[in-house]
Amino acid sequence: METKTRVTVIGLGEMGSAIAKALLDRGHSTTVWNRTASKADPLAAAGAEVAHTAADAVAASPLVIVCLLDSGAVDAVVGTLDAAVEGKVIVNVTSGSPAQARSNAEWARTRGAKYVDGGILGDPSDVGRPNFLLSFSGDRDGFDAHREVWEDLGTLTYYGEDAGLAAVEFLAQVAVGYEFLLGLLHTFALVKAEGADVEGFADRVAGSVGGYVPLVQAFGTAVASGEYGPDLGSLTVQAALMDDLISHRESLGVDTLRMREVKRLMDRRIADGHGDEGFSSLFELLGHA
Amino acid sequence: METKTRVTVIGLGEMGSAIAKALLDRGHSTTVWNRTASKADPLAAAGAEVAHTAADAVAASPLVIVCLLDSGAVDAVVGTLDAAVEGKVIVNVTSGSPAQARSNAEWARTRGAKYVDGGILGDPSDVGRPNFLLSFSGDRDGFDAHREVWEDLGTLTYYGEDAGLAAVEFLAQVAVGYEFLLGLLHTFALVKAEGADVEGFADRVAGSVGGYVPLVQAFGTAVASGEYGPDLGSLTVQAALMDDLISHRESLGVDTLRMREVKRLMDRRIADGHGDEGFSSLFELLGHA
Repeated sequence: METKTRVTVIGLGEMGSAIAKALLDRGHSTTVWNRTASKADPLAAAGAEVAHTAADAVAASPLVIVCLLDSGAVDAVVGTLDAAVEGKVIVNVTSGSPAQARSNAEWARTRGAKYVDGGILGDPSDVGRPNFLLSFSGDRDGFDAHREVWEDLGTLTYYGEDAGLAAVEFLAQVAVGYEFLLGLLHTFALVKAEGADVEGFADRVAGSVGGYVPLVQAFGTAVASGEYGPDLGSLTVQAALMDDLISHRESLGVDTLRMREVKRLMDRRIADGHGDEGFSSLFELLGHA
Repeated sequence: METKTRVTVIGLGEMGSAIAKALLDRGHSTTVWNRTASKADPLAAAGAEVAHTAADAVAASPLVIVCLLDSGAVDAVVGTLDAAVEGKVIVNVTSGSPAQARSNAEWARTRGAKYVDGGILGDPSDVGRPNFLLSFSGDRDGFDAHREVWEDLGTLTYYGEDAGLAAVEFLAQVAVGYEFLLGLLHTFALVKAEGADVEGFADRVAGSVGGYVPLVQAFGTAVASGEYGPDLGSLTVQAALMDDLISHRESLGVDTLRMREVKRLMDRRIADGHGDEGFSSLFELLGHA
């Protein structure tokens, strides 16, 4: 019989408990610790070792998963461990900023530990399924050493040695979604103000979203290379359309926040002699606007 | 042999010429007119009748397609026709606002003509292919009477008797796309500022866009019914994430326009006692913000 990695889980909220339970189900010897000890009871019943201190929990396994409420809780718990982490792989899946991840990595490095930062997209009920998405960045050896543990839990992506990259990816993906969804709600308001059917419109948007895929890829290539073709049409043509959009929305009292920004950027780009380039070339003005 | 509908095309820019050519290719007797007459030469060579005046062109066919530069050109040409349009079906595929479409429909109605407003999504080179998308609204009988002509040109959608609906659909679909794409460019700026790979990020966004489809449909249903479940999570949980997004972007000097709006709307909704509802419930505040 194959010997499975011994794993420690620190933090037994809904997500931490679900991860510990999945590890037990898949045959890993699992040690758990939580500040409020009663949270460990169901896991103890399922076969987990319950450590009395966080330091004991860390001592028990080569791989330590930290899953706490927020980065303040991480500082409070992990900050007490100090020399106990030497030689360990610490994987922190608590939500936090890229800067916090980098600071944690430096803290671990100076104590002889390998630090990996993780992000989770998925519900606790999805642990162990392919739609449970785990993003990692940080110490490559530390990640590779226990890859088989993570493969038991979901679908993995590793972004690179910079420990901040997983958090960057999470914040960026979430932001793209929020931009889209708030724009969608504002457009629902326009559709409703015009007396059209919002639910039917939503179904048609759902049907056209797939058409964004090649555009997103083309925009990525254009921005990375700095070479901007006339993607959606030339800026000169698009600026006229944007005027129509703005005046239509104004006539209905519907939001024009992004449309006015788009028009302002288009006008500046055209004035700078780039009227034959496409929408993606507006990137050149961002951060300097 | 089947007798095909006689069709008139007014306006021979790139799109009008492509439509007239496609009609000829599919066996329709086609009459064309353009203010600058030389534009008709290639079509005459392909078998089109060339009318000397716009009124002659209208008199030649039961179906008249108007494809001009903008609604100012439509007013200038069609406004001179007056009684000549009686009994005709006028289909105007020139870009214009919902209000212009409704005004054109009224103008036609009082002269005994049936008016249909059309929107085009596609390039002139795509005329006759399934990816040439034609949207119509206005007189249902007028649209149905010549449906087989339109089926020769592309994929059809009819939105309803209100002539403005095709223009509403066009402006709304375009707006959703622009909101998404400018948000994407701002997020590329964040990814680049963090030293991550923009092109790789774009590929991953392209891979995740399909995940928006069920959300868009659920948002449409929620807004139409006024019943808001906790779609992406409760607003209370999401507001904390939004604070993280905003402070991260501020630390990099990256745009926070939409994120600050989202946070402000979330805070108001939570203060009003709706913290357990989802993101879609922000719709209730739009237009009153």
